[in-house]
Amino acid sequence: MPTLVLIRHGQSAWNLENRFTGWWDVDVTEKGAAEAWAAGELMKAKGLDFDQCFVSVQKRAIKTLHLALEAMDRIWLPVEKDWRLNERHYGGLTGLDKAETAAKHGDEQVKIWRRSFDVPPPPLEAGSEFDLSKDRRYAGIAIPATESLKDTIARVLPYWESRIAPELKAGKRVLISAHGNSLRALVKHLSNIADDEITGLEIPTGQPIVYELDDNLAALDRYYLSER
Amino acid sequence: MPTLVLIRHGQSAWNLENRFTGWWDVDVTEKGAAEAWAAGELMKAKGLDFDQCFVSVQKRAIKTLHLALEAMDRIWLPVEKDWRLNERHYGGLTGLDKAETAAKHGDEQVKIWRRSFDVPPPPLEAGSEFDLSKDRRYAGIAIPATESLKDTIARVLPYWESRIAPELKAGKRVLISAHGNSLRALVKHLSNIADDEITGLEIPTGQPIVYELDDNLAALDRYYLSER
Repeated sequence: MPTLVLIRHGQSAWNLENRFTGWWDVDVTEKGAAEAWAAGELMKAKGLDFDQCFVSVQKRAIKTLHLALEAMDRIWLPVEKDWRLNERHYGGLTGLDKAETAAKHGDEQVKIWRRSFDVPPPPLEAGSEFDLSKDRRYAGIAIPATESLKDTIARVLPYWESRIAPELKAGKRVLISAHGNSLRALVKHLSNIADDEITGLEIPTGQPIVYELDDNLAALDRYYLSER
Repeated sequence: MPTLVLIRHGQSAWNLENRFTGWWDVDVTEKGAAEAWAAGELMKAKGLDFDQCFVSVQKRAIKTLHLALEAMDRIWLPVEKDWRLNERHYGGLTGLDKAETAAKHGDEQVKIWRRSFDVPPPPLEAGSEFDLSKDRRYAGIAIPATESLKDTIARVLPYWESRIAPELKAGKRVLISAHGNSLRALVKHLSNIADDEITGLEIPTGQPIVYELDDNLAALDRYYLSER
């Protein structure tokens, strides 16, 4: 039976400060690093093991993966990094404090940007300090100026189909370290969750989510490892 | 011009204790971690950058690579891990204190094992606590019972030819994090060093070694980055 575990990165500096992060490359906090280590210890204690790992190209997810793998004594596992597992791009909201943004634009508008399925926030302005167009890691990629959750799903799922699903079908046990919205994309797909429900699904930091899948990768069960 | 940088892992716990390590998966010390971070800072300060990294499947080399990349803000670079970059397998000497071994077998014998080109130490005994035949990372691999430097070269160079050289020829800038003897194998090949000379070449921990190569990967220059 194919095994898939999803893990959202441990607490980041901007999770703590309650700022919109998106593609900005914020590090994990000390607490976030401890969450990652604890996730690895939990996976080891529960007897989980892996053959292949996937991760975004963002530091908070990569460090979470490295720490969890080290705690499992599996730092030697192969890891594929890809921008298509990145967090949703928050456009012009990147870097903004969530409370300030609500004060400025109104709670309702912010709720729409955060929780609607297909309404993207305003685009990142040209010349913004959060502009990534000069970042070498995205060379050759059409960096979005903003994304709705729908947009995020539209680049996560082709990567799932082309790179991750074949490994699972080949019998590999897969661990994915990624972000709230790129993981929502996968959970929506695997658990067949409706557009207007997925936006409200919270994915906690540093909590391994286990999928038991059948040979066609249909989900038989999904649970937090900490609850079993 | 293809760029290649070699780095030997930072100080490990058994470097410090002066024990033969080989394939045993000893961690870096705090000093070793600091060496790795400093190597990354030095590479960044000198303007070095990379497109592809290679590393053994041993923790001390992987952690050295991760720390150096993080210090360079390059933790997102692709990394390929392969056992063929592992340290020389020290066979029955694995785990032994070097001074005790000399007292037991004589200085001359230990010098032969350490510094001859083609004389391997005695094989690791079956049932040794350092036996790795049950280690999943080596599944499907004929784990050596011991290796001479010549044996180590015989598995490093095919990996160089098949995986690393093509990346360099394609214009990729390559960073390799590995071990004293797997790096000796590469230096011997690239700098055309004689069998009886290579065994005496010391490769210090945590010091980036830069190769300037021509398009056919012949070495034009080799130097310690710290000296330029």
